[in-house]
Amino acid sequence: MSLNIPHRYEDAMLKGLISPVLTPFNDDLTIATDLYTAMAKRLLSEGGCAGLAPFGTTGEALSVGIDERMAALDALIKAGVDPKVMIPGTGLTNLVDTAKLTRHAVDHGCLGAMILPAFYFKGVSDDGLFSYYSRLIEMVNHPDLRIYLYHIPQVSGVGLSIDLVRRLHSTFPDVVVGIKDSSGDWENTKALLDIKGLITYPGAELPVIEAVEAGAPGCISATANLNGQRIAEVIDLCHQGEWDKAREKHQLVRGIRLLFQDYAPIPAQKALLARALGEPRWNNLRPPLMAMPEDKVIALETALKNEFGFSI
Amino acid sequence: MSLNIPHRYEDAMLKGLISPVLTPFNDDLTIATDLYTAMAKRLLSEGGCAGLAPFGTTGEALSVGIDERMAALDALIKAGVDPKVMIPGTGLTNLVDTAKLTRHAVDHGCLGAMILPAFYFKGVSDDGLFSYYSRLIEMVNHPDLRIYLYHIPQVSGVGLSIDLVRRLHSTFPDVVVGIKDSSGDWENTKALLDIKGLITYPGAELPVIEAVEAGAPGCISATANLNGQRIAEVIDLCHQGEWDKAREKHQLVRGIRLLFQDYAPIPAQKALLARALGEPRWNNLRPPLMAMPEDKVIALETALKNEFGFSI
Repeated sequence: MSLNIPHRYEDAMLKGLISPVLTPFNDDLTIATDLYTAMAKRLLSEGGCAGLAPFGTTGEALSVGIDERMAALDALIKAGVDPKVMIPGTGLTNLVDTAKLTRHAVDHGCLGAMILPAFYFKGVSDDGLFSYYSRLIEMVNHPDLRIYLYHIPQVSGVGLSIDLVRRLHSTFPDVVVGIKDSSGDWENTKALLDIKGLITYPGAELPVIEAVEAGAPGCISATANLNGQRIAEVIDLCHQGEWDKAREKHQLVRGIRLLFQDYAPIPAQKALLARALGEPRWNNLRPPLMAMPEDKVIALETALKNEFGFSI
Repeated sequence: MSLNIPHRYEDAMLKGLISPVLTPFNDDLTIATDLYTAMAKRLLSEGGCAGLAPFGTTGEALSVGIDERMAALDALIKAGVDPKVMIPGTGLTNLVDTAKLTRHAVDHGCLGAMILPAFYFKGVSDDGLFSYYSRLIEMVNHPDLRIYLYHIPQVSGVGLSIDLVRRLHSTFPDVVVGIKDSSGDWENTKALLDIKGLITYPGAELPVIEAVEAGAPGCISATANLNGQRIAEVIDLCHQGEWDKAREKHQLVRGIRLLFQDYAPIPAQKALLARALGEPRWNNLRPPLMAMPEDKVIALETALKNEFGFSI
C-alpha cells in the first residue's frame, strides 16, 4: 500500500485519524479553556487521533469570535499540544479577517489551515472563489502557509467544484495541498482522490476504507471526539494492508456513526461527554445551536449501549 | 393615511426610502473612503433617500472585516452623515463579534442596527434563533439599542419565521422594533405588516405601494443607489394619499427594477456608477463577487436608456 502523495507533501500530511474538536463553553458561554485543552490532549494521547482540526463545524467555529479563536489556539499550544499536528479552521466570509486568523495559525507553527470558501453570497462563480483563495494566499504571504480546502456545501451553502479544486491545487501546488470533503458524496470524494498530489480527507469514517484504498491518508471525523480509538484502528489496519480485518472492524464503527447521524451530532456528543465526565459545562452550546433534551440523550445512550456495547 | 406604528416608535422610524450603500474599493481592495462618504452624502442630498442602511448585502458587508466596518462607519459620521438616519448592518455568524459591531453602531448614535440571524448553521430552530437575539440584546446592554431584523433567506440561508419575529417583537417591543423583508415574497411581507407595532420595510420597491397601504413607512432597496429619486417620489405620493399618481409613476420604477434583477445587481450598479462618474474604482468588487463583463454593462446601459429613458 503506497499513498499517491508526492514526496514533497509527506511532511505536510497527517496519516490516520484527525479529530475536529468540540468547543466547550462555561455557563456564561465563554470558552471553557480548561476543558478544551484537556479534551485536545486526551484525543491525542488516548483518543486514537494523529491530529486535530480545531474550529471546524463540529467545534462551532462560526459561533466563536475572531479574538476568542486566536486565544483558544494559543491556549492549546501553551498546554502542550504540538501545532505540527493541528489544522485549525480559519475561514470566514471575508478576506481580511480570514487572512488574520490564517496568519495567526501559520505564525504559531500549525501544520496548515482549513479554509471554507466565502459563504455569505450563494451561487458565486468558480472564478470568484478562485480569486478569493488567490488573494488570500497573497495576503497571508507566508512561506509556511498550507491550505486544506473545506467542502461542506450542505452547511456552508457554498461548495467547491472539482474543477475549482484542481485549478487551485495546480496553480498553488505547494500551498493548496489538501481538502476535507464533508459532502458525504462518495463520487465527489473519489474525484478529489483522483487529483494527483492533492491530500484528500473524507469528512467522515463511513467511506474511510475505500478512501485509504484510493490514496487518502485517513479521515477527519466529528465522531472522533467520542469514538476515536475504534476509527483509528480501522485506518491503521488499512495502512497495514489488512483489508478484511479493517472491513470487519468497520461494521461497528459504521453503525455507531449512523446512529449519531440520526441525532443532532454536536449537541448529542456534548451531552454524552457531559454525562460521561460528570461535567455539566459540556452541555453548553452557543446559540443558535441548542442543547439536546434529556430524554433524547438517554435514548441515544441506551441505543449505543444496547446495539453496539458502546459507552464512553 | 395613518401608519400603524404606535407613538413610541415614531422616533425610531425612517419614513420614505432607505438606501443600502454600495461599498467602493480602491484597486488594492481597501475601502475607498472618499468615494464612500461622497456616495452616502449624495444619496441623502440629491438621491431621494430619507436614510441609509450601510453594510447590507448590497454593500458587500460580509466581504468586509470587522475593524474595516467600524472605521467606515466612523468615516461616514465624520464626513457629516447624521447617524440618526443610519441603520448599519451588524450581523455576523457569532454573538461576540456581532455584539461588538452593534455596540459600536449604538454608541455612535445610529438609529438602529440591521441584524441577520446567525447564518452558518442551516435548519436551526426558532428557539435557537430566539436565544441568539436574546443573548445579543443582553450582551449589547444599551438603552438605545434598536434592532431591525434582516430576513434574506435566499442569500443568508437562514430565514426568520413570522412566529419568531412576532415572539421577538412582543418579548422586546422597545428593542426589536422592525424588520427588513428581502425575501421578495409578498405574502411574507404582508404577514409581517400585520404584526402590531412592528416597523416592516420591504426589501425592494416592487411591492412598495401595497406595503405603504398596509402601514410600511417606505422601503429599503438596493436600486436606491441609482434610482432613488424616482422610488422616493412614489413613496411620497403614497404618503400623500395620491395612490393613482403613485401607481402611474411606479410603472417606470418597476420596469427598471426588473431589468436590474436580470443582471447581477451589485456588479451591475457598480459598473454603471463607474461609467457615469468616470471613476473606474467603482468597478472593483471584493471576491467572491466579480466585476461584470463590459459587453453586459453596455447591454444593460442601452436597455435602460432605450426602454426607460434612464441614465444616471
